Amino acid sequence: MAGFQVDEIVTSLQQVRREWREGQQRAQEGGERELPSRDVMADVVESLTGALFPMRLGPTDLRQESEDFYVAHTLDAALHHLFAQATLELRHERRRTAAELAELSADAQQRVRAFAEALPGIRRLLDTDVMAAFHGDPAARSVDEVLLCYPGVLAMIHHRMAHQLYKLGLTLLARIVAERAHAQTGIDIHPGAQIGAGFFIDHGTGVVIGETAVIGERVRLYQAVTLGAKRFPIDSDGHPKKGLPRHPVLEDEVVIYAGATILGRVTIGKGATIGGNVWVTQDVPAGCSVTQALSRELARDMAAPAK
Amino acid sequence: MAGFQVDEIVTSLQQVRREWREGQQRAQEGGERELPSRDVMADVVESLTGALFPMRLGPTDLRQESEDFYVAHTLDAALHHLFAQATLELRHERRRTAAELAELSADAQQRVRAFAEALPGIRRLLDTDVMAAFHGDPAARSVDEVLLCYPGVLAMIHHRMAHQLYKLGLTLLARIVAERAHAQTGIDIHPGAQIGAGFFIDHGTGVVIGETAVIGERVRLYQAVTLGAKRFPIDSDGHPKKGLPRHPVLEDEVVIYAGATILGRVTIGKGATIGGNVWVTQDVPAGCSVTQALSRELARDMAAPAK
Amino acid sequence: MAGFQVDEIVTSLQQVRREWREGQQRAQEGGERELPSRDVMADVVESLTGALFPMRLGPTDLRQESEDFYVAHTLDAALHHLFAQATLELRHERRRTAAELAELSADAQQRVRAFAEALPGIRRLLDTDVMAAFHGDPAARSVDEVLLCYPGVLAMIHHRMAHQLYKLGLTLLARIVAERAHAQTGIDIHPGAQIGAGFFIDHGTGVVIGETAVIGERVRLYQAVTLGAKRFPIDSDGHPKKGLPRHPVLEDEVVIYAGATILGRVTIGKGATIGGNVWVTQDVPAGCSVTQALSRELARDMAAPAK
Amino acid sequence: MAGFQVDEIVTSLQQVRREWREGQQRAQEGGERELPSRDVMADVVESLTGALFPMRLGPTDLRQESEDFYVAHTLDAALHHLFAQATLELRHERRRTAAELAELSADAQQRVRAFAEALPGIRRLLDTDVMAAFHGDPAARSVDEVLLCYPGVLAMIHHRMAHQLYKLGLTLLARIVAERAHAQTGIDIHPGAQIGAGFFIDHGTGVVIGETAVIGERVRLYQAVTLGAKRFPIDSDGHPKKGLPRHPVLEDEVVIYAGATILGRVTIGKGATIGGNVWVTQDVPAGCSVTQALSRELARDMAAPAK
Amino acid sequence: MAGFQVDEIVTSLQQVRREWREGQQRAQEGGERELPSRDVMADVVESLTGALFPMRLGPTDLRQESEDFYVAHTLDAALHHLFAQATLELRHERRRTAAELAELSADAQQRVRAFAEALPGIRRLLDTDVMAAFHGDPAARSVDEVLLCYPGVLAMIHHRMAHQLYKLGLTLLARIVAERAHAQTGIDIHPGAQIGAGFFIDHGTGVVIGETAVIGERVRLYQAVTLGAKRFPIDSDGHPKKGLPRHPVLEDEVVIYAGATILGRVTIGKGATIGGNVWVTQDVPAGCSVTQALSRELARDMAAPAK
Amino acid sequence: MAGFQVDEIVTSLQQVRREWREGQQRAQEGGERELPSRDVMADVVESLTGALFPMRLGPTDLRQESEDFYVAHTLDAALHHLFAQATLELRHERRRTAAELAELSADAQQRVRAFAEALPGIRRLLDTDVMAAFHGDPAARSVDEVLLCYPGVLAMIHHRMAHQLYKLGLTLLARIVAERAHAQTGIDIHPGAQIGAGFFIDHGTGVVIGETAVIGERVRLYQAVTLGAKRFPIDSDGHPKKGLPRHPVLEDEVVIYAGATILGRVTIGKGATIGGNVWVTQDVPAGCSVTQALSRELARDMAAPAK
Repeated sequence: MAGFQVDEIVTSLQQVRREWREGQQRAQEGGERELPSRDVMADVVESLTGALFPMRLGPTDLRQESEDFYVAHTLDAALHHLFAQATLELRHERRRTAAELAELSADAQQRVRAFAEALPGIRRLLDTDVMAAFHGDPAARSVDEVLLCYPGVLAMIHHRMAHQLYKLGLTLLARIVAERAHAQTGIDIHPGAQIGAGFFIDHGTGVVIGETAVIGERVRLYQAVTLGAKRFPIDSDGHPKKGLPRHPVLEDEVVIYAGATILGRVTIGKGATIGGNVWVTQDVPAGCSVTQALSRELARDMAAPAK
Repeated sequence: MAGFQVDEIVTSLQQVRREWREGQQRAQEGGERELPSRDVMADVVESLTGALFPMRLGPTDLRQESEDFYVAHTLDAALHHLFAQATLELRHERRRTAAELAELSADAQQRVRAFAEALPGIRRLLDTDVMAAFHGDPAARSVDEVLLCYPGVLAMIHHRMAHQLYKLGLTLLARIVAERAHAQTGIDIHPGAQIGAGFFIDHGTGVVIGETAVIGERVRLYQAVTLGAKRFPIDSDGHPKKGLPRHPVLEDEVVIYAGATILGRVTIGKGATIGGNVWVTQDVPAGCSVTQALSRELARDMAAPAK
Repeated sequence: MAGFQVDEIVTSLQQVRREWREGQQRAQEGGERELPSRDVMADVVESLTGALFPMRLGPTDLRQESEDFYVAHTLDAALHHLFAQATLELRHERRRTAAELAELSADAQQRVRAFAEALPGIRRLLDTDVMAAFHGDPAARSVDEVLLCYPGVLAMIHHRMAHQLYKLGLTLLARIVAERAHAQTGIDIHPGAQIGAGFFIDHGTGVVIGETAVIGERVRLYQAVTLGAKRFPIDSDGHPKKGLPRHPVLEDEVVIYAGATILGRVTIGKGATIGGNVWVTQDVPAGCSVTQALSRELARDMAAPAK
Repeated sequence: MAGFQVDEIVTSLQQVRREWREGQQRAQEGGERELPSRDVMADVVESLTGALFPMRLGPTDLRQESEDFYVAHTLDAALHHLFAQATLELRHERRRTAAELAELSADAQQRVRAFAEALPGIRRLLDTDVMAAFHGDPAARSVDEVLLCYPGVLAMIHHRMAHQLYKLGLTLLARIVAERAHAQTGIDIHPGAQIGAGFFIDHGTGVVIGETAVIGERVRLYQAVTLGAKRFPIDSDGHPKKGLPRHPVLEDEVVIYAGATILGRVTIGKGATIGGNVWVTQDVPAGCSVTQALSRELARDMAAPAK
Repeated sequence: MAGFQVDEIVTSLQQVRREWREGQQRAQEGGERELPSRDVMADVVESLTGALFPMRLGPTDLRQESEDFYVAHTLDAALHHLFAQATLELRHERRRTAAELAELSADAQQRVRAFAEALPGIRRLLDTDVMAAFHGDPAARSVDEVLLCYPGVLAMIHHRMAHQLYKLGLTLLARIVAERAHAQTGIDIHPGAQIGAGFFIDHGTGVVIGETAVIGERVRLYQAVTLGAKRFPIDSDGHPKKGLPRHPVLEDEVVIYAGATILGRVTIGKGATIGGNVWVTQDVPAGCSVTQALSRELARDMAAPAK
Repeated sequence: MAGFQVDEIVTSLQQVRREWREGQQRAQEGGERELPSRDVMADVVESLTGALFPMRLGPTDLRQESEDFYVAHTLDAALHHLFAQATLELRHERRRTAAELAELSADAQQRVRAFAEALPGIRRLLDTDVMAAFHGDPAARSVDEVLLCYPGVLAMIHHRMAHQLYKLGLTLLARIVAERAHAQTGIDIHPGAQIGAGFFIDHGTGVVIGETAVIGERVRLYQAVTLGAKRFPIDSDGHPKKGLPRHPVLEDEVVIYAGATILGRVTIGKGATIGGNVWVTQDVPAGCSVTQALSRELARDMAAPAK
């Protein structure tokens, strides 16, 4: 058997990589891989999850007597791995060489330290999320079942960590964490989204929450809800402008049923309810219920300019 | 480098855990972890899947001559692991200590034995599901492709086991099994749902089937179909009442196209067809086809009281 | 403890398998497993992904100096594993015995060789997909973030390989690859779908693209978009006819917003925009924007015959 | 291919096992495996070694700041695994059923607790062993090299733990630990042997130290040294009597060169030196040097009765 | 950093390999690796060990009720792996190409079948070895301790299988099995050696038993005993002649103490005892005890011609 | 159950570690582990072994067509891991902090580069070792069996690499490599020993070759041979002086039979033969055969001063 003429394919692939690098103006780069690693970040998230909920999501042979030891050792190791990844991200972002690495180190360390200090607050918020799921779902039998089984809770464990990384400027690490939750749960929350206490997503598959969304306390969402952008302002190069507020604001105690779509920087007032499959592109007053019939009215002026 | 002051964070996390346990009135608990394990249940499901379909989903070095040996050994080991998990669930549910474990053992064993006896029936049902997929999808080329590749079939392998656990009162184990399928396929079937033979879900992402749903024989569903609850009766504490029939009944040979939403304890009559993206909250007579135009009529009185 | 009477269950399971095999007219088969393996194909895809993007998705200890060595060795090994799987598929499809294996070998080798030669072109197309994602999403910060984190890009890496396998007649391998992407991203692209350069799927959960869909260049899709079949012609046995063109054609630069459903062999003209949640079953002219109001008109005659 | 007629072989093997069990009068036993596990004990030893020397033999990502956390958590987990193994040994030894397990538990726990309390003393002794190796070998370059590389030190880490288990009556666990060292180093020290501080074995392959040997402080041994029994008193059944003192006593600062053999309950006096390949079966006075010529005299009366 | 100029070293290594192949007259070979694998054989031995002693050396979660299932499935899989390795050995030995593989298959299968049929007899012999160790060592506390911990028993489990492979002409596989035992125990038994029932090696490190040695029943050996060849007849090319009887014969109930060396085709008569470190190159009559003094006489004529 | 009072033991262990560090005058150290890793070095050796003998000791799925690619990629990765370990050793030896690491880097790189350049020569020497084993052992059936199975060859693969590291001043890495061979084969060759081409050790268990030994070409050794030091000159602190020539010199074609002991800086002349168990402490002229009787004469003056 004559094999597969790998040589020619290797040469062709080399040529394609060269074109890509030239197109990206990276012709001169070399040496080691400089990107953070998804696998390392997956381990970091696993470890931090164990440190946050040691007796329920930590190792099965853990005993309550040595909870603090486990938490301390796990935390210390996870934070140092996170520190290395943070340094890689800063270096990649600023195109520094390995030699200049030291100068990024203090910066990375300060960010990871701030992240660490936020962890007790994150645990406290997650406890409110667990309670919200338990009270919000008639099928839930115990708070432990909720923590072990609910994809919405798994997504929030990831999001509350990812959001902290995002606020500290480690946006690539944040995104890696968020996409890990997305792959496991079908829930796609951008790490930039701000979400208050007692948040509950039921079922969750197909939920999308955009970067600049702001969500109050005790909000409840069902599967396939979109909190998206209506349209993007375009910059002078014809590309979408980055960073502008363009996703909805949900005030406290809002409920949004499955498949509803809310687009643009609109505000859904306190305690409002959005029915299933409803399409909303305007503000909704506090306490109001929107159903499909009503939403057709609200949707009218969005349809118009699109022609 | 000065490290990350892990001590203070550990103390804060300890304080948050204490608050949680006090809030949950578990201040006095201690000792070992008492929850079932998702990892062990994943292994149990893997083993049982291999025992159900040895030559196609079992180990690649299995030969037909030793099929029964493999099935017997795998089954015996898997059932004993399941027995241990069942004991953990019963103990957790009834808040027994390790010392009282023995008295739960006979109970757990009896349930696992009943589960084991149901396995041949489960295999028989799954064979009808595989045939339904093969006949229902013009893209399907062989029954083996269907068993190997179709997420709907993977979801049903999990569900038919999870439903059996649910009927035997092992609801936490059932839920763990169901969420494993949800994470892999995006299909979220509550283990309580009753589903007849020859069931086929095509594509599947975003399908949600609620706890008290009842589905007849030869029913077909497409992606993003919801069989949900309309609204929950509230008990005197303001929490949703648990356990009431609140999801749809689908009679034999119903077909529901992608994105349709059926809410509440309504009945879709034998052979009825629900069109894509349709919203249904009323009974649909046997043999009837519902499309968006028609559904708008049906939806009217749901919209009314919501104003 | 008396154990679980595994013997009886084993006998019952044996009986069910025998019935299945008789129903499938495979009573005489025996010997070794003859199906391709999902695990091996997962490894093949992992290796090929590393060979396509060595410094970003390859091993973390890879250095640019030895990129070509890594690519060559990885490629050679992956192609030989693929060759073995291709041989298994051909043998399974044609029901040959192990003894006749040799005669399939040349056929399998020729197909894998053609696959290998297509890889540089696949990498080139994927580079256009990455650029499309970077320019299409205001939240994207760098092309590397896009390659590392975007589920739409992960889905396309799988699809462009799966489509090549499909074109070479290795449809079962192609399907295994496609379902791997589906499980990880919630994006379900049939390997038969033809997709041009610069394709971008944002968020992606719930996207379904059918077997005979044809997509032009620089097309953009959002989550939960369906490019499906309207209804299947039925053959004389009452089963759907296989292989007919039955999914949409999207011309260059079409944009389709979240939740839109396009069914049947319709053509969406160059540069057209389909709004969120819109339902389309007719051709849409080039440059046209379709929103819900407008779609209601277009949908009218589909609704009519369904009554 | 007709396979391998496994059925008949299985039946024959079953028959042999039945004969064995009848011969051992264990015909009625059943249920689960009741022996301790070599794999679990290997993990316990690994963990305890890390807890004893965290920065040098613990995990590579450990940092000095969290040394105590690591030690505490590792110790707690390892001791609980050891406790389970100790319970298995006691149950096996006393032929108790699973139901009577609880009554052995307090006994096992007390032994493991005593073992744990001995660990600091064990570490202290091992530090003296490391120093002895460093000073005793002209090829040793640092104390860290000694701890990392010297098989004699590895053997002593195992022995000092195994001896503690032996003293606590957990002789099977002790033996498992000792054989692990034997397999890795070729040094076979029975866990019963009593060995003082500052003990150094150079090279080590082939060293054998018997159960009732007593070794003082600062003793040095080279490869292939045997401290064995001369002959065993026989009991009334014709089997060797167990437990009698039958191996040598080495007083402080004895040196024994490679290949020397010392047999029986003889005493080698303080500071004596035994030359290479020498055969000794009589007491050697303190400070004396024995070489081959001299040993021939000493050996004379051993040779005589053997005729 | 400029890297390591791997290219030049690769070229040099290629050159050395070419020289080697030319020297071995294998210039034209190519394609896949054709040697058996040590890793696969290690797994085969592990599996067969579990099948021989299921409740003591098999998986820890095995239960006695499903012993036979485990044995049957494990045996079937292990024998098929062994069959593949046997085919590789035959092909390598006879320098056949992959295409001619089929013709070796029947031959390999027949040998593996004969091996399988020998397994019950092997187990029976190993039971006698375990009993011999238990009765022969005053430190042994139970037959289970012996099976779990004694390196001599581990060596015999390997040898009795290796010897069977050797007798069936699979000498390379036999050697791989033997060296696995050697690496773990320091006991080096050539697979050709014939060893009777009830054989016990105590401690074992350094024992060497040559290819043509013949050992009777109930023989006992201690560490560092050599049963070797005295000198090799040289063939006309100046290389040692292969296959001639050149190692000792030990009749029933012989005991050989540590460090004794017995060289050449001599016979040690029934019940004879050879003392520690003794050097023997002549026949020893039945019932006789040889010690160092006596051995000097026996050794005289060996020393003479060496002058 | 009250647990194991881990706190107190942790505190005691901390105290013992503090004493050790004070004794070693390392009180102020902190931060990360600074020692090379045995596990990493094991991987490096595995990789280099595969790169030296790709088709026989490399991965089983390697094909001859891509041999060079595999060699190049493996070599590049292994050398970079070795480089990191070399840097750790230099840093540890010179007690540099992490900040000063850069300055050691060029030094480490230069040493690893020299090591890499020596690899083709090492392969060439190993080929001579393989041939020597094949011709020297009447039981050897093929050169491939020798490479796959002979512990003496495995030991030399390690030694020839370790010796190169030793010559480049990386003595700790060299020692780690040497001890890996010792653990697997029972052959203990100090990395400092100089060994010529065509070296063969048969059986090997218990062989010890000291740091300053010098061995010519085509030398053959059997098991349990010691090439050791007679006595160590003592420095003014009472510790043995390091680095002096103190082990034997073996000229070309020397043969040393099992159990022989040669001590001190003596020379065994070309073609001399040392019999089994012989003890030599004086020069042996070329071509001479030494047996036990003769050795007793030679040993006389060693015995004398020892009295």
